[in-house]
Amino acid sequence: MAMIKKAVKGMRDVTPEEMRLRNHVSDVIREIYESYGFTQIETPCVEHIENLSSKQGGENEKLIFKILKRGNKLDIANAKEENDLADSGLRYDLTVPLCRYYADHAAELPQPFKALQMGNVFRADQPQKGRFRQFEQCDIDILGEPSNLAEIELILAMSTVLTRLSFKNFNIRINDRRILKSMAAWAGFAEADYDAVFIILDKMDKIGAEGVIEELEKAGYPKENASKYMELFRLLEGKAGEEALKALSERMGEALSAEGRSNLEEIFSAVNAAKKDGWTLLFDPTLVRGMSYYTGTIFEVELKEFHSSCGGGGRYDEMIGRFTGQQTPACGFSIGFERIITILMEQGYQLPDEKEKTAFLLEKGLPAEKVNEAMSRAEELRAEGKCVQLLRMAKNKKFQKEQLAAQGYTEIKEYFR
Amino acid sequence: MAMIKKAVKGMRDVTPEEMRLRNHVSDVIREIYESYGFTQIETPCVEHIENLSSKQGGENEKLIFKILKRGNKLDIANAKEENDLADSGLRYDLTVPLCRYYADHAAELPQPFKALQMGNVFRADQPQKGRFRQFEQCDIDILGEPSNLAEIELILAMSTVLTRLSFKNFNIRINDRRILKSMAAWAGFAEADYDAVFIILDKMDKIGAEGVIEELEKAGYPKENASKYMELFRLLEGKAGEEALKALSERMGEALSAEGRSNLEEIFSAVNAAKKDGWTLLFDPTLVRGMSYYTGTIFEVELKEFHSSCGGGGRYDEMIGRFTGQQTPACGFSIGFERIITILMEQGYQLPDEKEKTAFLLEKGLPAEKVNEAMSRAEELRAEGKCVQLLRMAKNKKFQKEQLAAQGYTEIKEYFR
Repeated sequence: MAMIKKAVKGMRDVTPEEMRLRNHVSDVIREIYESYGFTQIETPCVEHIENLSSKQGGENEKLIFKILKRGNKLDIANAKEENDLADSGLRYDLTVPLCRYYADHAAELPQPFKALQMGNVFRADQPQKGRFRQFEQCDIDILGEPSNLAEIELILAMSTVLTRLSFKNFNIRINDRRILKSMAAWAGFAEADYDAVFIILDKMDKIGAEGVIEELEKAGYPKENASKYMELFRLLEGKAGEEALKALSERMGEALSAEGRSNLEEIFSAVNAAKKDGWTLLFDPTLVRGMSYYTGTIFEVELKEFHSSCGGGGRYDEMIGRFTGQQTPACGFSIGFERIITILMEQGYQLPDEKEKTAFLLEKGLPAEKVNEAMSRAEELRAEGKCVQLLRMAKNKKFQKEQLAAQGYTEIKEYFR
Repeated sequence: MAMIKKAVKGMRDVTPEEMRLRNHVSDVIREIYESYGFTQIETPCVEHIENLSSKQGGENEKLIFKILKRGNKLDIANAKEENDLADSGLRYDLTVPLCRYYADHAAELPQPFKALQMGNVFRADQPQKGRFRQFEQCDIDILGEPSNLAEIELILAMSTVLTRLSFKNFNIRINDRRILKSMAAWAGFAEADYDAVFIILDKMDKIGAEGVIEELEKAGYPKENASKYMELFRLLEGKAGEEALKALSERMGEALSAEGRSNLEEIFSAVNAAKKDGWTLLFDPTLVRGMSYYTGTIFEVELKEFHSSCGGGGRYDEMIGRFTGQQTPACGFSIGFERIITILMEQGYQLPDEKEKTAFLLEKGLPAEKVNEAMSRAEELRAEGKCVQLLRMAKNKKFQKEQLAAQGYTEIKEYFR
């Protein structure tokens, strides 16, 4: 069989230059999240097909790379469908494995458990620019904490990471599924229709309020519901945070979810008191977040200058119970690792200084004692924390030196016969 | 479908405690290898089935986790064998993807290219104690360097890593496939039989010279060849390094591979001149290394006190040519990352000091201004490099404090209503 040089479809190799940046960003993330008391765990890339197909993963469940059964379990002749052939698959996120991990290890873990995870996930998406079928996710989750201390810590931790990585001008948009639902109820939508309504609402920033009304009507909802719904959003235009919540409360009265409102007010109060940096926490009543497993607070980071989301998360108090049979409150945030790398690469982000780099060029036929002398000297310099590379002197030494300079070798020492 | 709490068969979750050690060891490895001029790259976990089945992987090719084709490519009704169903699989090592990477990127890479890789590989082995189906490999390779400068740099780099990780009493055993072959030729074996003979020779440390002779005869080789072969190994007993090579040369004369001999002599001379630490480089004429792709030097690390191998490698000058059609000299070393972790865990390896850790306990019903005060104070301490965790005060505060102490929280501050 012929060998294939390119990476498999939709996946890619990482160059040394990008790898340095990735390592740096990972180090910053790890250091900062650890300062908030998160501890790192790791789960396998391979997960049970049952867990991946538990309806927690939404659309991602259609994108699973499935792994062929092995040995006697694989019965090709009698196989009818994919799941006759596969009993495991590559994880499409870190949340499902985290819940499995917690279900299996809860007895040994501190309460609450603050988990940091960094690892590859896999989705068989149609490949497109900047979107790959293997990519790194980086999640923090607080399991076992029912109060919004969890949300507050998550927001402060991730905003600190972004600030440290030179991002200044970002918004953290926040909403609460309970507010979202009470607004839909107030407008007259039935509970069974919420998810469908929210999918349309989610397009507000693209199609505007008129567009949303139009789509709601097209989908068969009464015009009066759609209009009443949009009335609320018009009321909130230009109002930020606590002011918007107050306006909403005045208009909706007791119909507005009281838990949702006080939850967001407490988060606003604590985050704004503690935060030092110039980013903004914004109440966004149109924020939906796709995953149906969210039960309370939801949030999303918006990098304004790059017109880009850069991660999000929320509270999912019911997922772990599906593993354990016992409800465990949970709240998490996934930072957009690949998005950050792409932006920092484009911006020419300045990495911290590398070690001083020296190259030793050894002429061909250099006698053993001179080779040994060079080796010993290199070992001494490395022990002092420098980077030293030994190379045979090339015939085209000028070119070799230019290449080394391009790689950051500032000093070159030559050893002649 | 019911959810499954345990990790998939043969794979495992990593606890926070082990993760700290793994991160530390990874950091040390990265720092030291970089000081030798290695630069890190990454390839996808998923690789083309053609590349994984190219006969470079030996026994590992039987252990591939294969990934189901998707969409129209998957034709279950007409599938006869595994490869009708799968066109990719999980990589079983980092060497095959490295060769693919090099073949695809050679034009942009420095010559020689010194690559560092750290990543998960997957093998569907029978699970057993300490051996898992997903595990981390950590390889350094020098591509494009025909001389034994490559071997010397690899040996010095990996021995420095081991020394820094507190290993003292280890041997690096070294041999050359050309010496191995010339010894077999001298004893009268045919070239076609070398691989089979070496598999038996490889058992020397378990069954002794008598056992090897017996097995060679049982396999149908002439008694005189077996005896003549063992004569060489008896001659070398108790002789180390250069002394053993000299004895071999006196006995075999010109039949001993001259390239093999001078290669090892140069490596001995340079490594022994440069090394500072107390480990030993040993010529081991019984060292075989399983993979048939090795073409010259082979080596293996032996942790004497743990009766354990801890990685190995060698020169494989012909593998990249299979991708590119053009021979590229290559030499690599894979350090036994998982073995190192297991040993350091068992030994209670002392990690560098953690950040100072403080927990703030907030009484239930604490008014907003006090919550905010705690939050602000926590943010200040974190900015100073400390680790601070905010928790609701538990009903059983004594137990909570004990738990926190066990997690290394040396300071606890309480906030009351």
